[in-house]
Amino acid sequence: MSKIINIGIVGTQFMGRAHSNAWMDVDKFYDLPVRPVMKAACDNVAENLDPFCRRFGWQSNETDWKKLVARDDIDVIDICTSNNVHMPIAVAAAKASKHIICEKPMAMNASEARAMLDAAQAADIKHMVAFNYRRVPAITLARQMIEEGKIGRVFHFNAVYYQDWLVDPDFPYVWRHDKKVAGSGAHGDMNAHIVDLARFLVGEIEAVCGADEVFIKERKLANGSGMGKVTADDALFSLARFCSGALGSFMATRFASGRKNYLRFELFGSEGSLLFNLERLNEIQYYTRSETGCEQGFRTILATESDHPYINKWWPPGHIIGWEHTFIHEIGDLLTAIGTDKPITPDFYDGLRNQQVLDAMQISVEKKTWIEVAPA
Amino acid sequence: MSKIINIGIVGTQFMGRAHSNAWMDVDKFYDLPVRPVMKAACDNVAENLDPFCRRFGWQSNETDWKKLVARDDIDVIDICTSNNVHMPIAVAAAKASKHIICEKPMAMNASEARAMLDAAQAADIKHMVAFNYRRVPAITLARQMIEEGKIGRVFHFNAVYYQDWLVDPDFPYVWRHDKKVAGSGAHGDMNAHIVDLARFLVGEIEAVCGADEVFIKERKLANGSGMGKVTADDALFSLARFCSGALGSFMATRFASGRKNYLRFELFGSEGSLLFNLERLNEIQYYTRSETGCEQGFRTILATESDHPYINKWWPPGHIIGWEHTFIHEIGDLLTAIGTDKPITPDFYDGLRNQQVLDAMQISVEKKTWIEVAPA
Amino acid sequence: MSKIINIGIVGTQFMGRAHSNAWMDVDKFYDLPVRPVMKAACDNVAENLDPFCRRFGWQSNETDWKKLVARDDIDVIDICTSNNVHMPIAVAAAKASKHIICEKPMAMNASEARAMLDAAQAADIKHMVAFNYRRVPAITLARQMIEEGKIGRVFHFNAVYYQDWLVDPDFPYVWRHDKKVAGSGAHGDMNAHIVDLARFLVGEIEAVCGADEVFIKERKLANGSGMGKVTADDALFSLARFCSGALGSFMATRFASGRKNYLRFELFGSEGSLLFNLERLNEIQYYTRSETGCEQGFRTILATESDHPYINKWWPPGHIIGWEHTFIHEIGDLLTAIGTDKPITPDFYDGLRNQQVLDAMQISVEKKTWIEVAPA
Amino acid sequence: MSKIINIGIVGTQFMGRAHSNAWMDVDKFYDLPVRPVMKAACDNVAENLDPFCRRFGWQSNETDWKKLVARDDIDVIDICTSNNVHMPIAVAAAKASKHIICEKPMAMNASEARAMLDAAQAADIKHMVAFNYRRVPAITLARQMIEEGKIGRVFHFNAVYYQDWLVDPDFPYVWRHDKKVAGSGAHGDMNAHIVDLARFLVGEIEAVCGADEVFIKERKLANGSGMGKVTADDALFSLARFCSGALGSFMATRFASGRKNYLRFELFGSEGSLLFNLERLNEIQYYTRSETGCEQGFRTILATESDHPYINKWWPPGHIIGWEHTFIHEIGDLLTAIGTDKPITPDFYDGLRNQQVLDAMQISVEKKTWIEVAPA
Repeated sequence: MSKIINIGIVGTQFMGRAHSNAWMDVDKFYDLPVRPVMKAACDNVAENLDPFCRRFGWQSNETDWKKLVARDDIDVIDICTSNNVHMPIAVAAAKASKHIICEKPMAMNASEARAMLDAAQAADIKHMVAFNYRRVPAITLARQMIEEGKIGRVFHFNAVYYQDWLVDPDFPYVWRHDKKVAGSGAHGDMNAHIVDLARFLVGEIEAVCGADEVFIKERKLANGSGMGKVTADDALFSLARFCSGALGSFMATRFASGRKNYLRFELFGSEGSLLFNLERLNEIQYYTRSETGCEQGFRTILATESDHPYINKWWPPGHIIGWEHTFIHEIGDLLTAIGTDKPITPDFYDGLRNQQVLDAMQISVEKKTWIEVAPA
Repeated sequence: MSKIINIGIVGTQFMGRAHSNAWMDVDKFYDLPVRPVMKAACDNVAENLDPFCRRFGWQSNETDWKKLVARDDIDVIDICTSNNVHMPIAVAAAKASKHIICEKPMAMNASEARAMLDAAQAADIKHMVAFNYRRVPAITLARQMIEEGKIGRVFHFNAVYYQDWLVDPDFPYVWRHDKKVAGSGAHGDMNAHIVDLARFLVGEIEAVCGADEVFIKERKLANGSGMGKVTADDALFSLARFCSGALGSFMATRFASGRKNYLRFELFGSEGSLLFNLERLNEIQYYTRSETGCEQGFRTILATESDHPYINKWWPPGHIIGWEHTFIHEIGDLLTAIGTDKPITPDFYDGLRNQQVLDAMQISVEKKTWIEVAPA
Repeated sequence: MSKIINIGIVGTQFMGRAHSNAWMDVDKFYDLPVRPVMKAACDNVAENLDPFCRRFGWQSNETDWKKLVARDDIDVIDICTSNNVHMPIAVAAAKASKHIICEKPMAMNASEARAMLDAAQAADIKHMVAFNYRRVPAITLARQMIEEGKIGRVFHFNAVYYQDWLVDPDFPYVWRHDKKVAGSGAHGDMNAHIVDLARFLVGEIEAVCGADEVFIKERKLANGSGMGKVTADDALFSLARFCSGALGSFMATRFASGRKNYLRFELFGSEGSLLFNLERLNEIQYYTRSETGCEQGFRTILATESDHPYINKWWPPGHIIGWEHTFIHEIGDLLTAIGTDKPITPDFYDGLRNQQVLDAMQISVEKKTWIEVAPA
Repeated sequence: MSKIINIGIVGTQFMGRAHSNAWMDVDKFYDLPVRPVMKAACDNVAENLDPFCRRFGWQSNETDWKKLVARDDIDVIDICTSNNVHMPIAVAAAKASKHIICEKPMAMNASEARAMLDAAQAADIKHMVAFNYRRVPAITLARQMIEEGKIGRVFHFNAVYYQDWLVDPDFPYVWRHDKKVAGSGAHGDMNAHIVDLARFLVGEIEAVCGADEVFIKERKLANGSGMGKVTADDALFSLARFCSGALGSFMATRFASGRKNYLRFELFGSEGSLLFNLERLNEIQYYTRSETGCEQGFRTILATESDHPYINKWWPPGHIIGWEHTFIHEIGDLLTAIGTDKPITPDFYDGLRNQQVLDAMQISVEKKTWIEVAPA
């Protein structure tokens, strides 16, 4: 009989739903060394909590994350809150020897991230940052191909993350528009993902130089009392030099009309290239210079074969999976790591390094010059 | 408190897994008037049954479908077996006043299908054939657009269903290769889907003319005892005239190297056109003649907006869903129909009409001439 | 000094323009063994002739093709007239020992085509049917790859030719709508092309079964005197069995809203597949089963490399060519064949075989049954 | 009878061929107010000159551009030489009151460009920089749509120009690798084009910040005498702020394996978006927010309709044109401007402004900071 691992989740909104679905589904498709039990959910808004627990089957609830963290019957803390409380929850959870999975971006800044990493390393726990796109099968495949030398030396990693939901001038002022509360706008939410993929696929970033913009400077307050001043970036673009010598770019914007959740990377190397677009997440395009010239071309690999990463959990070839499956993959791997006591990535070290790159980009925007990424 | 609806499933293989996942997930994402309970699973191979029930949470099991159908504590029979027992199970279930959802193709031939329809109509039950592609959001959207007149009069419906898993000559002889057991090959499995979509989107088919082929005439028996003669079609193509005057085509093959599960339709009308491809199931291409010439073009609608069909159950725009979600949609709609006592489609009438078209195609292949589809 | 070859063209409309452009450009890009001189143009409408000659540099003109054919200073007759006079011009030209290039479809029917072939074979001339799509570089490449065995045994050749210019109900009645004058509608114009590509890429066709339709039965006469009855097909679809055992389809329609000149073929074989679409004529998609499963996918070959067919005449990689270049290629190859006294294809034999397939399709439509293609 | 305009071309290589083809073809497809005569070609390598003149029909030749410029029988000087002699030729031609078309980039730097502009403005001539991509029909259409307000306020213009011919480490050292001779590498050749499109479509650029890289630091000398040090950039990326407030990016590289001549721009605005890729130059993708949400999507406009820019010179819808046609369009417009004495763009002012942006990017690379573009 598998060992039981009790899960406590903090946060019941978008990410809370996506993680709950994953906790619920994971052992229906994975053969796991441990068995997850959806033990408790936590939200400081009590009226959110009840329907959430009933819907997804969380067995108990808490309105104070400190109480959740203190419970003896919880083995894993899953942090799906707003960014500004990631750090205190994670540090407390680590001190209480709970395994942790934390939504991205890991923290408000690098010093918070470092505190989280320190706490996690001081405890004997598994810690993970939920950069779920590493576990899109097509992207995991890209990493495998890179490790096998299929792309050779990487010259360029050009990534964009385009959305368009702020183009509407009637979209009201919310907390996300306030830099003091949110830390940043598109930057922390979207560049965090593509910087993580850059580190996953190419390696560490040496220096960056960015620019940001707020296109709609004021938005109506939801309560009708006037206008709020937007201080968090609508878009932040940055160039980057990698430690390996590659030259890259990162461009996050919420003002790309028509692009809903369009994360694209273009990775060009000495032996081949890889292209990816999240709106077609079951596909990756691959070009190899090893073919004869006459037959060269970008091929569209439909990453739904049983020997593609994660696909043996799912359906026959050509039956595509969705965005939510990436969460099941990450939670499946986390539970396996817990059950076998093996390391898991991306961990809090990755979260820290990610945060350091994001911080450097923001400093470069302010100083209007290149900034070296801080040492780990 | 919602009324409980107890489900009994027959069959634990590919479709059994897909349906189980849907029964498990449906009330996490739908607000349903009834609450499904995964009461019992049935398989005549006992050793399949236990791990299946444990994995998906089926509360009890049966090895004889007759016992399952006889149980008082079952409200819905979900038929996921091989095609040759659909009819007896469905007829028995109808007589026992169970609601029925039956995998496609509904039956081995039209006379079986008619027996099922008669039994279902004689009982006061909901009956559904699991043509799940009607509930791909992009396809449901296509139907809406057609009803709104966006496409006008339909001139052509050209559909293909391409797979490639039989191209490998070492793929062994299995029961599917025997026409007597399987009824047909690519035809019943794949043409059934595109004929259903044709009826859903365009309407009834008047006459057909087809051709089939077996490309690899013999295959190795799995037990090593020699070769088996392949009698079920590897491919069956058919032209079709619709009652509305449209001219169409249906081409199903398992010999389309590189195509894994590629169902495409091209629907051309007097006001616009619609194109769909299952390997990119979140997208549909739409052309409207109402735009000025300079700006006309096929647009790719990413059917992940909250006002697209079914998407309000799921995630924000641009977060794509997978193949398995179509089952959740169909089961969600079935449970709603049960709870509100409203009709549901595709029902056994649709299954019969579908079967009549498939039968006509097979007759036309044999007689090498056009065949009119039998009247309902 | 290269030998001079004097050209006489008959017809000054669309094809006359496209051929004139080719005659003018060909020796700027080819190093030819002979030098073409644009000697004379012929049109029975005198007022068309003058501006045409002045524009393209035709040195003299004739209003009677018989006079043109009789001229001693003409070496090649280029037939760009309406279909119903192809035969008499070609037969006369052959008797006068002129080389001939004739627009497609070669003739009104197979017996005309046979007369043309007989006349050409009795003379010592080069004869060519202007199926220009054989000389799209991507399609010539496809043929090379097939000859090299890259695709293996062909299972399917599915081709469509979609246009939409007749969807407009206000498009007036013209001679093309009269079957007696035009021979057929979409069929002869469009199926002729895809049947030629089928023969070029796959081989001879054994039997066919088709269906046609006229969607708009009457159209306004241009002179305002009422309505004309449309008798030529708006669309003609056909299934086909190849002598090799492949199963294929041909679908030509002028009622495919949004498709302007969309000729697509899908060729599926035991070792790989090839896909082509004329609206992206510089590209061909190729799938090979020889790759490992993990990296398989349809690759888009951009056929603009210097080692792709014909491209060494043109520009560096990635600089695409247009539709008109196919005429330059065919005329370049014809002049080379004349200069070196080597055979050229597609010749009048190909034109005859093509016509026999088209005829069989039309007979099958009338008889509503399968028809075997007549022997050569 | 149209007035004759005599053309003298300097340079017989790649651009010399492309321009010659355009001079030859232009009056076959345009109805021009003047008639171009291919009067003289010039190259300082005499043995290149003869075959070039014979091939394209240049009537006379010169080996010294000064003599060409001095000839009374020349009305237009077409400069297709290496960049370092653009300025002296153009200044001399302007002084001799010849109309000028000059290949891009206009000059080695902004001060040269200014000298050219001053000379041109002092003379009563037409002057044009051959940024031919402005006259890709799809791009001209984009400009029209922007002027009509279809895109609204532009938020982003992100452009790349990817090629891959330097990825091969065996590609030898040539003069292009020496910054002193070539001025720059990918930058001047490729960023020049996308900066021109940015100015054409969005407007002036305020400030830039770039980074460059040489990936292969040494290459074999062609004469076998050792290695040459590469000083010209293999890639140069830059961020940019437009005067209008838009935030953009420009990325030129010759190390994008698999991309042959891939110029892409993505233009996102408050009312819609436009996407373009030169390898599919007959297409442009357009998204409009004016559609209802359910039917929104990027549409692919095939810019081959008769009411699309330039297409009425060519073929029916769906018959695509090639890269070379852009030169015919630019020369057709230039001749029309000469014949009607109307202004033509892009002119030397555009060339100067373009050069100022390129210069600012290079300075920013050296200074590792943002640089404001110099005032006109």
